[in-house]
Amino acid sequence: MITAKARAVDGPDKPFQAAEIQRRDLDLHDVQIEIKYAGICHSDIHTAHGEWGEVNYPLVPGHEIAGVVTAVGSEVTKYNIGDRVGVGCMVDSCGECENCREGEEQYCLKGNVPTYAGVDKYGEPTQGGYSTHIVVTEDFVVRVPDNIGLDVAAPLLCAGITTYSPLNHWNAGPGKKVAVVGMGGLGHVGVKIAHAMGAEVTVLSQTLNKKEDGLQFGAKEYYATSDQETFEKLAGTFDLIINTVSAKIDINAYLSLLTLDGTLVNVGAPAEPLGVNAFSLIGHRRSFAGSMIGGIRETQEMLDFCAEHDIAPKIEIISADQIDEAYERVLASDVKYRFVIDISTM
Amino acid sequence: MITAKARAVDGPDKPFQAAEIQRRDLDLHDVQIEIKYAGICHSDIHTAHGEWGEVNYPLVPGHEIAGVVTAVGSEVTKYNIGDRVGVGCMVDSCGECENCREGEEQYCLKGNVPTYAGVDKYGEPTQGGYSTHIVVTEDFVVRVPDNIGLDVAAPLLCAGITTYSPLNHWNAGPGKKVAVVGMGGLGHVGVKIAHAMGAEVTVLSQTLNKKEDGLQFGAKEYYATSDQETFEKLAGTFDLIINTVSAKIDINAYLSLLTLDGTLVNVGAPAEPLGVNAFSLIGHRRSFAGSMIGGIRETQEMLDFCAEHDIAPKIEIISADQIDEAYERVLASDVKYRFVIDISTM
Repeated sequence: MITAKARAVDGPDKPFQAAEIQRRDLDLHDVQIEIKYAGICHSDIHTAHGEWGEVNYPLVPGHEIAGVVTAVGSEVTKYNIGDRVGVGCMVDSCGECENCREGEEQYCLKGNVPTYAGVDKYGEPTQGGYSTHIVVTEDFVVRVPDNIGLDVAAPLLCAGITTYSPLNHWNAGPGKKVAVVGMGGLGHVGVKIAHAMGAEVTVLSQTLNKKEDGLQFGAKEYYATSDQETFEKLAGTFDLIINTVSAKIDINAYLSLLTLDGTLVNVGAPAEPLGVNAFSLIGHRRSFAGSMIGGIRETQEMLDFCAEHDIAPKIEIISADQIDEAYERVLASDVKYRFVIDISTM
Repeated sequence: MITAKARAVDGPDKPFQAAEIQRRDLDLHDVQIEIKYAGICHSDIHTAHGEWGEVNYPLVPGHEIAGVVTAVGSEVTKYNIGDRVGVGCMVDSCGECENCREGEEQYCLKGNVPTYAGVDKYGEPTQGGYSTHIVVTEDFVVRVPDNIGLDVAAPLLCAGITTYSPLNHWNAGPGKKVAVVGMGGLGHVGVKIAHAMGAEVTVLSQTLNKKEDGLQFGAKEYYATSDQETFEKLAGTFDLIINTVSAKIDINAYLSLLTLDGTLVNVGAPAEPLGVNAFSLIGHRRSFAGSMIGGIRETQEMLDFCAEHDIAPKIEIISADQIDEAYERVLASDVKYRFVIDISTM
């Protein structure tokens, strides 16, 4: 066992505090990673605040992890000491079910093991990336291409794959009109990826505040959803809409923007149900779908795609002492566009 | 103009009465049809009762029409006098929009012209199939194959195509598990079609009352949705669910029955929105979609498919005087499985 320094919360209303956690001894296929950077995802906040169900505190969040391999188990074949690697939202799965066998471990029928707030196969609670080290089985580790900095690699492990996977699955590409709803941590990466895939990208954001950035990231158009005319003007326009907003929205208004056979994909989940008017779907054979991160193979594919297309999230690096403040700023939508913790400050 | 005998309602709460309506003189591409049989669709009832928006009474419903060509316009090329033909839910569309050009006239961007309660290109209100004659432009007429009786052909023009189209679009076939929700007019035809396509079919009905019929129609399994165990037992089972029930259902319970990448397609639309829990979709990349009848080309394909596979709806033939009674029985789910009006009794 090694002792890792970490930042943990002790309860839903508690601030982050310095803590020490134990990382397991290396099993045959385990990789020990010295974490360099960890992104702050909105899910971290939901979980830390106990909004997504009961949590066993103390909790160390963080599932956007980038670092360097510092030790490997005796049967590890994929990684060597010194390799630049990443870990995303899950650290294990059953490996045997039909979905795992297809490389869709995120949809493991027995439930994947989340990077934090889960229980691993040893029966131990999982703890995330706001810490100096982590031990993960090699099949759930991905390689960070040389031309992607570890700081910007971190957010790709959740924000990147969460948008890449539905864009890939629903065939964003040349000739397709894609809208990205929300210009936050996920949305801004989604715009870059969809643009790099060759799709014509439109951003639908509450205001035009980030329009300049959006166009620079690759969007062709940028509309404010606070303006009702947006919905009239864009009715029946998009083949694919990726909704990155977890708050409750008027889903029928967004569905009306889809063309025949268009699909709106939610990658976030508001706590309350969304009232879908079936006529919104039936009238143009539209689909309302959901997508959750991506499989490990696809996560590697996403990193390689980002390397090839020079895609990096725009980040603000913070120290370990600034996590509480960063959470407040995320909740106030005051971040462009992802906070990343410099783990060396831990 | 010719005068057709019809049955019409004068208001949302009025009974059907004998009426005379005018059918237009034949335009160049028009086909005049002597109607032999007209099916009673639940939509007729919603519209007659004014539940789907304002209606210009008197109204003659009916969009499941089968008959024989009795006259053709001077430039008609597709049909001759004596041909056995059918007319479904629409009698015209713009013909120019992107969806029309793709043969998806039901999704005409300018709105198709519904067979009744619409307004045709001459500015006249359309009146449906509860009448002795109808005049329709040839492009919206389909041919009834010789081995399909006109009485059973009628319901195929709405109930048939409404289930065939999504089964076809979402690739029901060998190796696919398909559930049909509801064993009414649409559902029972959907079971037959899905089975003929080679899919493994399960019926999900409120009770087991019609189980014997369902198995005979081609279902392999038949479950009662009133039994909560059904949802536990069938969780994650189906590639495709066709929901023919227009009443509000617990949509999340049905979504939970889909496998990874499965799709639930509503072909009916309850008046109230359906509360979709986004987690139901995200957890297995599921889709909730809608589908509306089918295009004219696909409607012909459906009739030919039914002819090839000996598929006929199970009907109860009634006289024109029994329409009110039939409506009451439809509302009470007391019909196996479609009422068809023998127009010779008009």
